[in-house]
Amino acid sequence: MQIVIIGSGNVAYHMAKAFSLKDIPLAQIFGRNQKELNKISEELNIPNSTEDLKDADLYIICVSDNSVEQVSGIISKKDCLVAHTSGSLPKEVLNGNYRKASFYPLQTFSKSKELKYEKIPFFIEAENEEDQRILFELASEVSKKVMKSSYEKRKYIHLTAVFACNFVNHLFARAKEISDSQEIPFDYFLPLIDETVQKIYEIEPKKAQTGPAVRNDVRVLQLHEQLLKDESLEIYKTMNHSIQKMYEL
Amino acid sequence: MQIVIIGSGNVAYHMAKAFSLKDIPLAQIFGRNQKELNKISEELNIPNSTEDLKDADLYIICVSDNSVEQVSGIISKKDCLVAHTSGSLPKEVLNGNYRKASFYPLQTFSKSKELKYEKIPFFIEAENEEDQRILFELASEVSKKVMKSSYEKRKYIHLTAVFACNFVNHLFARAKEISDSQEIPFDYFLPLIDETVQKIYEIEPKKAQTGPAVRNDVRVLQLHEQLLKDESLEIYKTMNHSIQKMYEL
Repeated sequence: MQIVIIGSGNVAYHMAKAFSLKDIPLAQIFGRNQKELNKISEELNIPNSTEDLKDADLYIICVSDNSVEQVSGIISKKDCLVAHTSGSLPKEVLNGNYRKASFYPLQTFSKSKELKYEKIPFFIEAENEEDQRILFELASEVSKKVMKSSYEKRKYIHLTAVFACNFVNHLFARAKEISDSQEIPFDYFLPLIDETVQKIYEIEPKKAQTGPAVRNDVRVLQLHEQLLKDESLEIYKTMNHSIQKMYEL
Repeated sequence: MQIVIIGSGNVAYHMAKAFSLKDIPLAQIFGRNQKELNKISEELNIPNSTEDLKDADLYIICVSDNSVEQVSGIISKKDCLVAHTSGSLPKEVLNGNYRKASFYPLQTFSKSKELKYEKIPFFIEAENEEDQRILFELASEVSKKVMKSSYEKRKYIHLTAVFACNFVNHLFARAKEISDSQEIPFDYFLPLIDETVQKIYEIEPKKAQTGPAVRNDVRVLQLHEQLLKDESLEIYKTMNHSIQKMYEL
């Protein structure tokens, strides 16, 4: 099976790398950014192009949600399978006369950060059983956790991921802003952060909640509000309100 | 040196356990809740009482912020050192004629969850050099990271911890609520959560931000808002607004 990856960003890079590590040959990596493509080609020994899209059996589109529709339109071939990797797009957004599919890896990708691909859950949706099988087998080469998922379900998976990953990272960024302002090294907080995550392997997050809001410690809540302003103050109020609602305080 | 721990909650238990593991003898664990005290006494072989506070050189008060002042008033002895373990109280809140101090472990404590005490940063404040030295040496038996900290700084350390730990846990709780509502196992998200935390060991959180808000992906942001309601919707809007402000989008 000839496979082409389209894109040159974080997801494209890691997808190509995950396949390469399992000796799954890639016919081409195709994208707009020649510099990034060259970096990937050099590291993984895959031909690249910014102009001539190679004939393939499977195209995996790894570009930002905004570009999926447009990029999918450049595939003029009909007898092929095209999958996007977005958590929040239906497979029908793909713009061509080929068979359409979704191939969604649930992970946060940065080029400079190595990943254990076998732990990444893959969610698969296709038009027919045969395509489903092809994508299932391909993902299973890379990961131990491969599942079917409808668009309806995938939307919620992505939304959950935004809370559990994107927003969590933003809390770290705001936390660091606070500690930086007082010249407190952010490293001090790493054991606490590790423990916060370790805990949810053993205790349901709702039962693991600690802090002034769940204790309804009004004095500390007021003290903290005086130390904050702007967006961090808004986050502080919104999160505490939500905590107190969850525990009916 | 005779040491007494006051309290029978999560912090008291872990403080007693941390000392016990290093063979630092505790003269007593004193508190209100006989049942919890008995559990700790049985596990760690420390005498307990709910009524007769033992004479000691050092009392470490491990009770909730709201109770520190009142509980500290029961120590009538003068020639002794009393430390509380709160992140957001000055040592002056201690209500007695003894020497006052703060002995603040930066960690989230649940009784049912084991901890690596040597990684917990301890922040120490005392009235004089000698008390400072005593507490510093004691904490250093348990932890590799012991530092001085004024009340001013400690307040901000605690506030940072609320963002990096308490709020992060609440995001996990809200995320689980979303995935539960669609019968998506929350386990699927654990590798993503692990990676989100692993990343900040290598990349500054501000630089590691991913997700629809930082991409300014208006379509996904609107789609997600339609899937949410009440407190989760409020969190969604507040966090995205804060992300977009941070990156000037």
